[in-house]
Amino acid sequence: MKRRDFFRNSSLTAAGLALSPLLFSSDDNTSLLLEDLNDEAKNIIFLVSDGMSIGTLTMADMHLMSTTGKHTTWIENYKNGRFKRAMMDTASADSLVTDSAAGGSAWGGGVRVPNGALNMGANGEKYTPILQKFKNEGKKVGCVTTVPITHATPASFCVNNKSRRNQPEIAEQYLDLKFDVMMGGGDQYFSADKRKDKKDVYGGFASAGYDVVKSKSQLNAVSNSESPLLGVFSDDPLPYTIDQKNDKELQNTVPTLAEMTSVAINKMKDNSQGFVLQVEGGKVDWAAHANDAPGLIYDQIAFDEALKVALDFAIEDKNTLIIVTTDHGNANPGLFKGRKADENFARYQTMKKSNTWVMQNLHANLKPNQLKELIEFGQGFAISDDEVKIILNHVEGLNEEELQDYNKMPYEKYGLIHKKYTNVGFGDMSHSADFVECAAFGPGSELLTPFIKNTFLHNMMLKSVGITFR
Amino acid sequence: MKRRDFFRNSSLTAAGLALSPLLFSSDDNTSLLLEDLNDEAKNIIFLVSDGMSIGTLTMADMHLMSTTGKHTTWIENYKNGRFKRAMMDTASADSLVTDSAAGGSAWGGGVRVPNGALNMGANGEKYTPILQKFKNEGKKVGCVTTVPITHATPASFCVNNKSRRNQPEIAEQYLDLKFDVMMGGGDQYFSADKRKDKKDVYGGFASAGYDVVKSKSQLNAVSNSESPLLGVFSDDPLPYTIDQKNDKELQNTVPTLAEMTSVAINKMKDNSQGFVLQVEGGKVDWAAHANDAPGLIYDQIAFDEALKVALDFAIEDKNTLIIVTTDHGNANPGLFKGRKADENFARYQTMKKSNTWVMQNLHANLKPNQLKELIEFGQGFAISDDEVKIILNHVEGLNEEELQDYNKMPYEKYGLIHKKYTNVGFGDMSHSADFVECAAFGPGSELLTPFIKNTFLHNMMLKSVGITFR
Repeated sequence: MKRRDFFRNSSLTAAGLALSPLLFSSDDNTSLLLEDLNDEAKNIIFLVSDGMSIGTLTMADMHLMSTTGKHTTWIENYKNGRFKRAMMDTASADSLVTDSAAGGSAWGGGVRVPNGALNMGANGEKYTPILQKFKNEGKKVGCVTTVPITHATPASFCVNNKSRRNQPEIAEQYLDLKFDVMMGGGDQYFSADKRKDKKDVYGGFASAGYDVVKSKSQLNAVSNSESPLLGVFSDDPLPYTIDQKNDKELQNTVPTLAEMTSVAINKMKDNSQGFVLQVEGGKVDWAAHANDAPGLIYDQIAFDEALKVALDFAIEDKNTLIIVTTDHGNANPGLFKGRKADENFARYQTMKKSNTWVMQNLHANLKPNQLKELIEFGQGFAISDDEVKIILNHVEGLNEEELQDYNKMPYEKYGLIHKKYTNVGFGDMSHSADFVECAAFGPGSELLTPFIKNTFLHNMMLKSVGITFR
Repeated sequence: MKRRDFFRNSSLTAAGLALSPLLFSSDDNTSLLLEDLNDEAKNIIFLVSDGMSIGTLTMADMHLMSTTGKHTTWIENYKNGRFKRAMMDTASADSLVTDSAAGGSAWGGGVRVPNGALNMGANGEKYTPILQKFKNEGKKVGCVTTVPITHATPASFCVNNKSRRNQPEIAEQYLDLKFDVMMGGGDQYFSADKRKDKKDVYGGFASAGYDVVKSKSQLNAVSNSESPLLGVFSDDPLPYTIDQKNDKELQNTVPTLAEMTSVAINKMKDNSQGFVLQVEGGKVDWAAHANDAPGLIYDQIAFDEALKVALDFAIEDKNTLIIVTTDHGNANPGLFKGRKADENFARYQTMKKSNTWVMQNLHANLKPNQLKELIEFGQGFAISDDEVKIILNHVEGLNEEELQDYNKMPYEKYGLIHKKYTNVGFGDMSHSADFVECAAFGPGSELLTPFIKNTFLHNMMLKSVGITFR
C-alpha cells in the first residue's frame, strides 16, 4: 500500500461518516514522522500480556525451552531479528506506578490519565478511544481477553469512563459502540439475572444483530457468521490455563486466548478497510497479584500461543502491524538462586494446578493430611507440618463468604511456601514501575523508537495506517 | 581502521610474543561474521552493573529524572538511539541462575562454566581469560571495581581458578599477569599483615614496577605516571555511594567508580595497540543481596556516571567499543504500587544513609528511641514501635562477632520495614534467572544481535577488534 500524508478515507467522509477526532496531544511523539513509514499497515493486532514483568517472560521461555526445546514466539522473534524492540516507560498521569486503566488509556486515548480512569483526565477531559477512531475510519474492531471483556485493558481501547469499576455501565457502552468482536469473561455484567439493575444487556446485543455465544461449541457454530460477535465464557475471568489444561470440562466449554484470537482475526480479516484487534492475556496480571507462579507461567505461555496465531496471520497477510507489550510490571517474579533452583523449577513441568486452585479448595474443616494431599496432587510436592499449620491457622477463622474472598485468603503466605519448593518468588502483590518490553512487527513497526512512553503507541498505531497529525 | 580477516598482530608475533590461544567453542556464536563489521575497534570498555535487575535501572532513572530532570546515561542513549540493544540469557553451565564467577567467565573465557568457577570447566578444563588474550595482542588491559579487585567479576576477565573464593591466590595470580591497571577494594588479600600466609603481595607489585596506591590523594599523585597501577582503597569493598556522599572523610580518601574509570582510561589510551578495560559497579549486586534500596539506587547512579565517563571518551575517540550490561538479575527490586508510592519514592531524594549503615550501627544495648533516631537521621522516616521491636529483638541475642556478620543481621527484616516507607521491595536476597539488558556503542557494536547468550560477548569483543575464528 502507498502512504498518504492526508486523511485516507475521503470516500468514507464523502459517504457521510463524521471525521474521526484526530486532534491529540503530541506528548513525546513529535519524532514520529510519516517519513519514517516504508509501507502503510491495513490491520493492527495489539497484544497485551497484562502485568508482565521481565521475569514472567523469562520463566515462560525457560519453561518452554525445558519442555519443548523451543523458545516462546516472543523470544524467538527477538532472536531471529524479526521483531523491532523498545523499552517502555509505563507511568500514569498521577503515579510512576500505573494501573491497567491508565496504562491502557495511554495507548487507547494517547494521553496519560489518573489511575483508575478510562480515557478521562482529572478534570473530566475525554480522549477518544482508539477503536472508536478506527471504527469511524471504516475498520472492523474488537477485543479478546481472558478476564471480563469489560475489564480495564479492553475498556481502555473502547470507552470513556471515569472509573474502571463501572463494569456494568461499560457493558452498556459496548452495546452503544457496536464493535465487531468482543470476547472474554464477565457474564455478571451482561446477564439480566446477575446485574443489579436487571437490564438484559445480552438481549440488547442480540437485538442489534450480534451472535451472542457463551461456550466454545456455540463459538465454533458462529465462527463463519457475518454478524458481529459477543462471546462471554464465564461469570468473571476465564480459568487459569494450567487449571483448564487439567480439566476436560473447561477444555470443552471455554476457548483459549489463541482460539479466540483466531476466530476474531478470521471474522474481521476480509473487511476492505482492514481491522484492529486488541488481545489481552489478562490473567497474567491476576496471577502476579496472587503470587500464583503456576498460574503465571502457563498463562504467559497461553498468551504466547495467541501471539503466534497473530504473527502467523501477519506474516502471511503482509499488511498487518503486530504490537506486543505489557501495560506494567507486576510483583517482579523471578526464579531465584539456590542449590536446587533448576530441579525445583522443573516441578512446573508436571504441575497440574494453580495456587488459586489450592486456595479455592481450602475450607475450615480441612484436615492437615487432606491439605498435604491436595497440594501434592495439584503441585507435586509435600509441604511440611509447620507450613500446613500456617495455612490452616489462617483459614480457621474464616466464614464461607471470607473463604471466597481473594483479599481474605492466604495467597501471599502460600506463595512463600510454594517458593520453597520451586524457587520462584515475588517482590510484592501489586504493580511495579519497571520499564517494560515492547515489540513490533510488520508495516509501521519501523516507527518504533528504542525508548518510549506508553502514549507513543497510540500515535504509532494511527500513523502506521497512514493517519497523520493535523 | 581497516578490517583484517587474519590475525592482526603479525608484527608482535614476529617480535617474539606467543600467539594468543584463540581456539574457543563456537557456542551459539556462529552468526558472528566478520562481514558484519563496518569498522574495527581499537579499544573496548566493558561495563558491568553487577546483579542489575531491570527494576534497578528503572529506579535509578526515575530517581535521576525526579532530582535532575535528566535520564541516566544508559536510558538517554536508548532514547537517542545511540546504543544498540540486546536481551541476554545469563545461565551458567550448571544452573539457569548464574553466580558472578560463572556469569563473568561466560564473557571472560567464552564458555559457560559451573557456578563458582573462574574460567574452568567441571573437569578442570581451562579457558583463556580475555584480558590475557588482549594483553598478548599488545593491548593494555585493566579492571576497576567498587568491590575487592580480586572479586569474581574482575577475576573472570583475568584468571583461571577453580573457585572465586580463592581471593588471596587470585591476588597473586594478578601479580603474575602484570596487567596495567587494577583498582578497587580488597586490602586483606594484598597486605602481609592481613593475609594468613603473611605474603607481601603489595611488595611484589612494587618490585615489579607498579605504582601501588591506597587513597584518592595517592591515586591523583600517580595519575600521570607511566607505570602500571595497583589501587586498593579499602579492606573489603568500597563504601556505598550514598554513605560516601554524606561522609567527608570517605569522599577525600576513596575515589568513585567514575574517577577510577577516568584514571584507567587516561593511563591506557595512548597505547599504540589500544586497551581493554572492565568497569564493575560491584556494590549494586551487594545492595541487592542486602535488600538495601538506598545502597542500590545510588550505586546504580554512580555506575551510570562511570558509563558517562567511558562513553564521553568513546564518542571523542571513535575507535572504542562500549559494552554495558549486567551478569544477572538480583532480588528483582521494584517500586511497587500504593496510595503513597510516589511520595514515598521521593524519600530517596533526601536520604543520607544505606540500610547497611543502619545495620552496622546496631548493637545489643541500643534503646528503642536511639534506633528510631538513627533511622530518622539516616533515612528520614520514623518507624513504629512494633518495627523497632522486630529489629531489637533480632539483635538482642547477638554477640560482637555476630553483629558484624552479614548473615546474622536483620537485613531482610529491615528491608521489609524500609519498604513500608518507600514502596521499594525485593523478591529474594539472591540472583534471579531474568533475561537482562545489554547495550553496545561504537565500532563493533553492529555485531550485537537482539537476543544473545552471555558467551556471545566474548567472541563479540574479539571480533570487534578484527580477530577472527580459526
